[in-house]
Amino acid sequence: MKSRGLLITAEGTEGAGKSTLIRLLREHLTSAGYRVVITREPGGSMVSEKIRTLIIQDEMEPWTEVFLYLAARHDHVQKTILPALASGAIVLCDRFTDSTLAYQSAGRGLPWNKLVELNRLATGGLAPDLTLFLDADVEQALARAKDPNRFERESLVFHRLVKKGFLKAGRKFKNRWLALKVDPSSTAEALAAQAMRGLERKLAPKLSRLKKSMAPR
Amino acid sequence: MKSRGLLITAEGTEGAGKSTLIRLLREHLTSAGYRVVITREPGGSMVSEKIRTLIIQDEMEPWTEVFLYLAARHDHVQKTILPALASGAIVLCDRFTDSTLAYQSAGRGLPWNKLVELNRLATGGLAPDLTLFLDADVEQALARAKDPNRFERESLVFHRLVKKGFLKAGRKFKNRWLALKVDPSSTAEALAAQAMRGLERKLAPKLSRLKKSMAPR
Repeated sequence: MKSRGLLITAEGTEGAGKSTLIRLLREHLTSAGYRVVITREPGGSMVSEKIRTLIIQDEMEPWTEVFLYLAARHDHVQKTILPALASGAIVLCDRFTDSTLAYQSAGRGLPWNKLVELNRLATGGLAPDLTLFLDADVEQALARAKDPNRFERESLVFHRLVKKGFLKAGRKFKNRWLALKVDPSSTAEALAAQAMRGLERKLAPKLSRLKKSMAPR
Repeated sequence: MKSRGLLITAEGTEGAGKSTLIRLLREHLTSAGYRVVITREPGGSMVSEKIRTLIIQDEMEPWTEVFLYLAARHDHVQKTILPALASGAIVLCDRFTDSTLAYQSAGRGLPWNKLVELNRLATGGLAPDLTLFLDADVEQALARAKDPNRFERESLVFHRLVKKGFLKAGRKFKNRWLALKVDPSSTAEALAAQAMRGLERKLAPKLSRLKKSMAPR
């Protein structure tokens, strides 16, 4: 069997702490001997980063936004994620398909099932092995955004809908979902350690297969 | 009843003469008293013109291309075409949904029916009142491209497939289709006159309704 890495996505509302978590997880996983690739959406490949600039700069209709995210996702999956997985890396991706469901369906009101179907088309059916959902207080998390972009400037009502969307995704995709409660009185390191334990538990068979494929013959 | 204009699209392989035809048709229709808006795809609105630049500059996967076209199309329909139609204009659009079918399905091999469905999603169900298909010899037409972009640089085999795709669209969408044979020994003016006669015949009831709505009360 060909060695194949793992795709772990981080999801959550603005300012929940995804990128910090991803950085800390990289340290943990690298220390444990895995090769780690960090990437993000929208972006993570040449064409997708250009699309990211467009999405973040300009106000646009919800469907325009969706099609741009799908274009960026397809390019990102083809050019960055699949090659990294084929090489046996653990890919840590900041936002992925669930953000489309949370923001464009729950947040903007587009039909959920249609977006599930379009996500599948854009990813060619690639699903995360694990999704870490940072369950933060929406208002506290938003307050951390210093130079807010057009998404971060949306109303609190919008961000609460987005959070509901993530909770719905959690119910729909139980198998790959790991919710982490963000406690503002605790540290990012403590959260990362908790994520690491959950990850090792949920992905145990896949991690041990990956370890074996990496061992010298 | 609210006055509503007409959407006329021009389709064809590279160099077939769409933009010249559109310019000449504008003169005919303006002389006949109609208000005309000329536009194009991809493009025709602020966000879509930025997407156009991206599509034309970068090599990308077929699905990335499709999602970018759909994003551009949605923005274009919402921001440019629908407002123009609501104002009672005749919109002459250089390329539209049929180009996606011809290039990305017939040309690049993506599933036809899926693209029909995605076109419908992107346009919100808006279909042209008439499509003028410029049926030109593929090789002769291509030779007219002076500073070829990445589509014009595709192989002759690709462009022949694209042409077949347009012919298939013509069979599928008979009601709104008007094929015009491009004769290199004849003039653009003669072709435009022929298009104008066809247009007046095919759209007679709609044109007379539009004329009435424009008349002073």
